[in-house]
Amino acid sequence: MKCKNLTYEKIDITDGFWKERQDLVREVTVWNVYKRFKETGRFDAFKLNWKEGEPNRPHIFWDSDVAKWIEGVAYLTAKKREPELEAIVDEVVDDIERGRAEDGYFNSYYLQIEPQNRFTVRDRHELYCLGHLIEAAIAYDKATQKGKLLSLVKDYVTLVKRVFMEENAAAFEAPGHEEIELALVKLYDYTGDRQYLELAAHFVNRRGQKGKPNQGWAQCNRGYEQDHLPVREQPEAIGHAVRAVYLYCAMADLAQRLEDDALKAAAERLYRNIIEKKMYITGAIGSTRRYEVVKAPDEPTVSYFGEAFEEEYELPNDSSYAETCAALGLALFSRRMQLLSPADASYADTVERVLYNGFLSGMSLDGKAFFYVNSQEIDLEARRRMRKFGRSERHYPTERVEIFNCSCCPPNVVRFIPSVAEFLYHYDENTIYVNQYMQSDADFGATKLEQSTRYPYDGAVSLKLTGESKTLAVRIPAWCKSFAFRHNGKPVTLPCVKGYASIPMRDGDVLELDLAMLPRRIYANPNIRANRGKVALTYGPFVFCMEGVDNGERLGEVRLTDGDVQVGFDPTLGLPVLFCPAVRETATELYTDTLTQTPFTAKLIPSFAFANRGESDMRIWHEKV
Amino acid sequence: MKCKNLTYEKIDITDGFWKERQDLVREVTVWNVYKRFKETGRFDAFKLNWKEGEPNRPHIFWDSDVAKWIEGVAYLTAKKREPELEAIVDEVVDDIERGRAEDGYFNSYYLQIEPQNRFTVRDRHELYCLGHLIEAAIAYDKATQKGKLLSLVKDYVTLVKRVFMEENAAAFEAPGHEEIELALVKLYDYTGDRQYLELAAHFVNRRGQKGKPNQGWAQCNRGYEQDHLPVREQPEAIGHAVRAVYLYCAMADLAQRLEDDALKAAAERLYRNIIEKKMYITGAIGSTRRYEVVKAPDEPTVSYFGEAFEEEYELPNDSSYAETCAALGLALFSRRMQLLSPADASYADTVERVLYNGFLSGMSLDGKAFFYVNSQEIDLEARRRMRKFGRSERHYPTERVEIFNCSCCPPNVVRFIPSVAEFLYHYDENTIYVNQYMQSDADFGATKLEQSTRYPYDGAVSLKLTGESKTLAVRIPAWCKSFAFRHNGKPVTLPCVKGYASIPMRDGDVLELDLAMLPRRIYANPNIRANRGKVALTYGPFVFCMEGVDNGERLGEVRLTDGDVQVGFDPTLGLPVLFCPAVRETATELYTDTLTQTPFTAKLIPSFAFANRGESDMRIWHEKV
Repeated sequence: MKCKNLTYEKIDITDGFWKERQDLVREVTVWNVYKRFKETGRFDAFKLNWKEGEPNRPHIFWDSDVAKWIEGVAYLTAKKREPELEAIVDEVVDDIERGRAEDGYFNSYYLQIEPQNRFTVRDRHELYCLGHLIEAAIAYDKATQKGKLLSLVKDYVTLVKRVFMEENAAAFEAPGHEEIELALVKLYDYTGDRQYLELAAHFVNRRGQKGKPNQGWAQCNRGYEQDHLPVREQPEAIGHAVRAVYLYCAMADLAQRLEDDALKAAAERLYRNIIEKKMYITGAIGSTRRYEVVKAPDEPTVSYFGEAFEEEYELPNDSSYAETCAALGLALFSRRMQLLSPADASYADTVERVLYNGFLSGMSLDGKAFFYVNSQEIDLEARRRMRKFGRSERHYPTERVEIFNCSCCPPNVVRFIPSVAEFLYHYDENTIYVNQYMQSDADFGATKLEQSTRYPYDGAVSLKLTGESKTLAVRIPAWCKSFAFRHNGKPVTLPCVKGYASIPMRDGDVLELDLAMLPRRIYANPNIRANRGKVALTYGPFVFCMEGVDNGERLGEVRLTDGDVQVGFDPTLGLPVLFCPAVRETATELYTDTLTQTPFTAKLIPSFAFANRGESDMRIWHEKV
Repeated sequence: MKCKNLTYEKIDITDGFWKERQDLVREVTVWNVYKRFKETGRFDAFKLNWKEGEPNRPHIFWDSDVAKWIEGVAYLTAKKREPELEAIVDEVVDDIERGRAEDGYFNSYYLQIEPQNRFTVRDRHELYCLGHLIEAAIAYDKATQKGKLLSLVKDYVTLVKRVFMEENAAAFEAPGHEEIELALVKLYDYTGDRQYLELAAHFVNRRGQKGKPNQGWAQCNRGYEQDHLPVREQPEAIGHAVRAVYLYCAMADLAQRLEDDALKAAAERLYRNIIEKKMYITGAIGSTRRYEVVKAPDEPTVSYFGEAFEEEYELPNDSSYAETCAALGLALFSRRMQLLSPADASYADTVERVLYNGFLSGMSLDGKAFFYVNSQEIDLEARRRMRKFGRSERHYPTERVEIFNCSCCPPNVVRFIPSVAEFLYHYDENTIYVNQYMQSDADFGATKLEQSTRYPYDGAVSLKLTGESKTLAVRIPAWCKSFAFRHNGKPVTLPCVKGYASIPMRDGDVLELDLAMLPRRIYANPNIRANRGKVALTYGPFVFCMEGVDNGERLGEVRLTDGDVQVGFDPTLGLPVLFCPAVRETATELYTDTLTQTPFTAKLIPSFAFANRGESDMRIWHEKV
């Protein structure tokens, strides 16, 4: 048996940190995103009755926004039916059925605005939209057994297969924005129909072959779309970060299902490149607000705003992009890589880094508002100077908003949090790998596993196995330097190999794990220019940040000093906080031999929770005195 | 009597640091620049016989390159005749006389390439070229009494006055690249003819009035050319840095000569803006390699490579522009500001900062090669990553070259160093202000002043006055925290007011000054994001840097630690060096709680001398441990 993830429907998260967030999505987020999408025409677009001159002109990627929302609704309804939400979904499905072309094609933008131009422009997101419709259809079918959307989507896929694989009749060979590839693998997994796997492999393999002329809007050169080299030869993660990790997901999926070692090696190389050279400490990726394209040696370098991977180690805090969807995509990619190396917990470490930091910062604590760009530093004074200088402040967000023009991130949160349990376990015949800690009940068939924990509020975890015996391989997080096990109440010493401590468990066995959670000072590799000489604080899985609202603004003046870091709890945020000795340094001249120093105790909060109390300075990395 | 500078021809630099450099320019640099200009067609262009298809197509600013070179030759020949160089100049002058248009117009590009288009494009540097021809003509006339070039230039100025001031017949009202304004003031000073002052004032006053449509190549919006607001209303130094400071020079000149307080206030405001918010520690200015223009709220931000002022406090080390000409221009501007506030030594402090650092780094120690862009940091590993990423390395220079396509800086060095004595003194009826320290003899008419010093190698200065009594106001450099005077051998205590210590001196009096020269740790204002938590070392007027060639490459790994800094001397460089306790930090992971630390003693050299021993890492600002 190949290693598998235990999928979300087999796991109930019953309490704690993630249960709170799942409830929030069910009660607030899914509705709030719906309302914003409704009022901006994203749902009505499916009715295909928009007329020139009316507001809310359909947009090329609106179908994907709604599809991701449907997928989220499906995950919610799988746990507890949501008739009102289902009614909305069913109306969309009916709209698709009524509006689709005879050959199965459906895209609310193309059908209304330029029906003659389907499959002519690579960067117009048609296959990306279909990919998300596939994922939505699978989830909705699984949750409700209403097969209509899945059936419609299969018809559309049949058309796509004919156009792209059989007739090679489109103006491009592989989509400009990857997504359909991983969705097709899911469709194969769900249906067992191998043609979907073949189509996924086709799209992945055509990438970088340059079989048709490059095209697209100015910014989308081949590198930006991972179309510069055949995927097995790509040495470095480059281009649009979301596109990249969605592609890499499909590469890992295909490598496992087709036992393709070259593809596995490429996926591993790209994963390592990200983790070792291109990832923020928060797990955010796609560091640049700017993406430069050298068109030709003698032409000027053209630069665009980003969403893209930067040069290696180029991880600026003050001009980060760090899209929510990209962080989420890295978690998806890491989970797939995990299956290729089941006994190496480092992939789950990456997932944890993303979950509690770079992904989670994408949503406000009240569940209503979102970051597309997740600032890794906010300097309001520098922003004011930028404004004074007449420079664009685009992509320098200081507060979350409820919707964006390009609103891919909010519905991605809506589908991600309800299915977050998929990151908990992978397993084979003999072993259950425990990757994340959440209070939950999991059903492995003949074996059940109950997790009791307050994690991440503390490091105590109790695992109770019932039913068929299994070996448990329990991840010791990379941040944890001291841990202890008790097996049925008795202390046991379990060696930790590649991050997993293993023990055979029988029916009724209880394994208790105590992960010592202490504040840590973390330093960046000196190759990261932005963080040289700086320190960040972590506690458990959280990377901490300092905010002006707690410490006074102008945080650029603050340096952390040596000394004990104290742990506290902020009841308003409902989160752990850290207190660290610090000093505020000021100067009147531009260069001086004497900085005025004012000592104080700095308060830091989990970085994902920044910008929930108004506009404020924020820093994750701090200079030392 | 208004305060005046003592001009270079009244001062002989007789030995020491600057004499060595003046000799180098006379023996090596002036010839080397000539050869590069000759072989690239810059001299032949004056013959106006270039034909389409031939190499070395004339360029719009070549006349200015040669004019600055002529000006340098004039300064050299004023001290010691240089018949060979003069012969070259005289040939150019004859070429101009022979080739100029009937109405006095001369521009080797326009006359050959598009004679019908003169004065139609603001950014084509015609008036800039004329400005440099004016400066050259004055210097050459003064040095040789050969009046021909001056006469030709006056004819051209007469034409310009008619076209721009009387007929308003050009397509623009003020030049795209300032320079003619300050040159016209010089011409007024030299000839006493007030029409030149009026024309200078006209150009300065028309700036920002928007009387004619904006034009020019894409990057040159009005702000880039200081044409966004009337000069008296400009709040902040913006745009192309060389253009800016050349304009500001003229503003200061006019403010003094016309007693225009509004203009003085504007010049002071712009000067303060630079000194307090927009200057590198080396005195380099124009920090950005990128200049962004927001064309319209909905249009994409367009960015270009720089030469421009950035936002306040935006002084990146790793992507500095810092053009040699801009630093030189800041020295010229500061000297003019000094005359508006004669008793404030801070302007001379700025001059010193520029002279020994940001300007001087523009030329190699052997006098043959130049930086246009003066890197404030070199990270070869980052540069390799940049190359690997396919990004343009333009404007990331690691070594000086003998000539550039746009070769404004080399001849600017050729004219600047031979006339550097102009920064030594300003004076009025009663007082001689001693601003810089160089072994020299100065002639103030009835008073002579002899400086004996090894400065900047040590801080001992002896000033001997002969002839008519004067008060000496002696600058105590801002970097000097301890000093002692002896008057005719006896210790005296002189209070220091705004940087000047004053004492009446009579015929034969000797004033000895001892400036304590100690290594200093300097910190940047925390508003400068690039330098937060960092330290720089200085010694005397020199800002020091660390080079890989002395300390091993990968200097991004190096942090300075506390402890005594020792002074040494490098006989190969012929310069003082500093030894500072340091540590090299390395990591294998991207983020870690343990950096490997290897202590060592770092060697630092004066920053102007960097990149004279091959390609190497270089850092001025160092993180602390």
